[in-house]
Amino acid sequence: MSEVLARKTEEFNKGLTTVDDLARQVEDLRKKVENFRPGAEDKISIIVFSGDLDKVLAAFIIATGAVAMGMEAVMFFTFWGTPVLRDPKKKAGGKDLMGKMFGFMLPKGRNAIKLSKMNMAGMGTSMMKSLMKKKNVASLDEMLDMAADLGVKIYICDMSMNLMGFKREEFIDYPNMEYVGVATFLEQAKNSKVQLFI
Amino acid sequence: MSEVLARKTEEFNKGLTTVDDLARQVEDLRKKVENFRPGAEDKISIIVFSGDLDKVLAAFIIATGAVAMGMEAVMFFTFWGTPVLRDPKKKAGGKDLMGKMFGFMLPKGRNAIKLSKMNMAGMGTSMMKSLMKKKNVASLDEMLDMAADLGVKIYICDMSMNLMGFKREEFIDYPNMEYVGVATFLEQAKNSKVQLFI
Amino acid sequence: MSEVLARKTEEFNKGLTTVDDLARQVEDLRKKVENFRPGAEDKISIIVFSGDLDKVLAAFIIATGAVAMGMEAVMFFTFWGTPVLRDPKKKAGGKDLMGKMFGFMLPKGRNAIKLSKMNMAGMGTSMMKSLMKKKNVASLDEMLDMAADLGVKIYICDMSMNLMGFKREEFIDYPNMEYVGVATFLEQAKNSKVQLFI
Repeated sequence: MSEVLARKTEEFNKGLTTVDDLARQVEDLRKKVENFRPGAEDKISIIVFSGDLDKVLAAFIIATGAVAMGMEAVMFFTFWGTPVLRDPKKKAGGKDLMGKMFGFMLPKGRNAIKLSKMNMAGMGTSMMKSLMKKKNVASLDEMLDMAADLGVKIYICDMSMNLMGFKREEFIDYPNMEYVGVATFLEQAKNSKVQLFI
Repeated sequence: MSEVLARKTEEFNKGLTTVDDLARQVEDLRKKVENFRPGAEDKISIIVFSGDLDKVLAAFIIATGAVAMGMEAVMFFTFWGTPVLRDPKKKAGGKDLMGKMFGFMLPKGRNAIKLSKMNMAGMGTSMMKSLMKKKNVASLDEMLDMAADLGVKIYICDMSMNLMGFKREEFIDYPNMEYVGVATFLEQAKNSKVQLFI
Repeated sequence: MSEVLARKTEEFNKGLTTVDDLARQVEDLRKKVENFRPGAEDKISIIVFSGDLDKVLAAFIIATGAVAMGMEAVMFFTFWGTPVLRDPKKKAGGKDLMGKMFGFMLPKGRNAIKLSKMNMAGMGTSMMKSLMKKKNVASLDEMLDMAADLGVKIYICDMSMNLMGFKREEFIDYPNMEYVGVATFLEQAKNSKVQLFI
């Protein structure tokens, strides 16, 4: 016992760390840690605003690539991106004139969308599709299956649906799909490491 | 006193945490905390590069939505986004030929911009506008008022103004607007949780 | 010695912080610090999907601006962005028919790309270029030199090269250029403070 006491006293006299000192340091650290802004979650949030084949493909390549790397992925389809998720085999009744017009003018699903450049009356688009097949790049159909398997979350913008007169019953079957407003998407985006507007 | 001493010595002999141990642990923590990269601020930074009605609308919907959620929002208008903020009722003199040409060719403010798709000689654009009214989606005019009320910060890219020959006196009145370079925007963007290029 | 002991005992009896207390606090802090999600690195990651002159310029202005501010910058050229980095003076043999067609139809390097708007059969594009010269805005050639000097890292998407039949020998000489997949880019992007899809 006298040994312990002797050592403690010696430390104290030498000005070594005391309990008081430590308590102050710990309090400083606690304040710093409490005020720390934490980093984002290992997640990617993509706004798919475009309905162009090349951009929608890029969005899916990035989303599925991210999930393959262990990240979470959320895609928010809005504006021109919304009709990409329509199912051409499904129909929705009870639309007003505007809704019918939009339904008619906008592409009916992912196989009806075109390249943003070099579409050349559809020739560029089919060239690209046959090229993707030849080079073993997954098609949009395959991408969507992969996204579903990998658990990519798909959000459809309810304001766009309202504007364009789309009904839920005309969209594809997808395991992880929700109809949400911009706030729900932003909630995810602000907790994500990566956000893209495509 | 002998009680305290007895306990302390017992702890020490049992190999329980000592002041030395604690001091080392606190020092380790301090180093970790000091080297920590803090997360971003609760802010969204949007580059509005596009001057298309649909994309500018999306930018405002996202910015005002973010502020409604308690985030800060900064919009940086550059390239084709710049003329969207011109006030059609204002005029600026002293422009060179190029400046006059750009001033003439680029849309005069937010009510002169068109959809990026399905504009169909303006028909698509006016259809969309009447549709937005019918469906209670805020127009760009209303969006801008809302953004001003909510405190959305607007930056106008000085390089774009210089290139296109725009003068400050031809821009809209907005409570929270600054003319800045890309560095000022990047300073905000890198401290933001979300950044988008629209 | 008796003084020290007296003080310690007094503290203890007064219920002031003891070593046990501190040990508990330090352990709490350690758990918090270990579970902390760190913020991103001081880096910007840009996907250059577009091959339009205005957007590619914007990408370089942002990337070089970021490096000038002390950040790191990575640009990932994909889809229509890929041909922008071709060297018009270089040729690549051994292409199949599709590769030859793409090689012919896509712009041969950064001086062959056009504005996304107001190209007006090339008139708008050359107007913009002469204007940039007059207003002392760096051209794409100068931007690329600057980016190389500043250490901006350029990634070229290997899937796009594969799709479009491009060969490595037809790309520009750039000190800091790699041919990578989307995973390599995402690895950078998720550790970056800013990510943009242009």
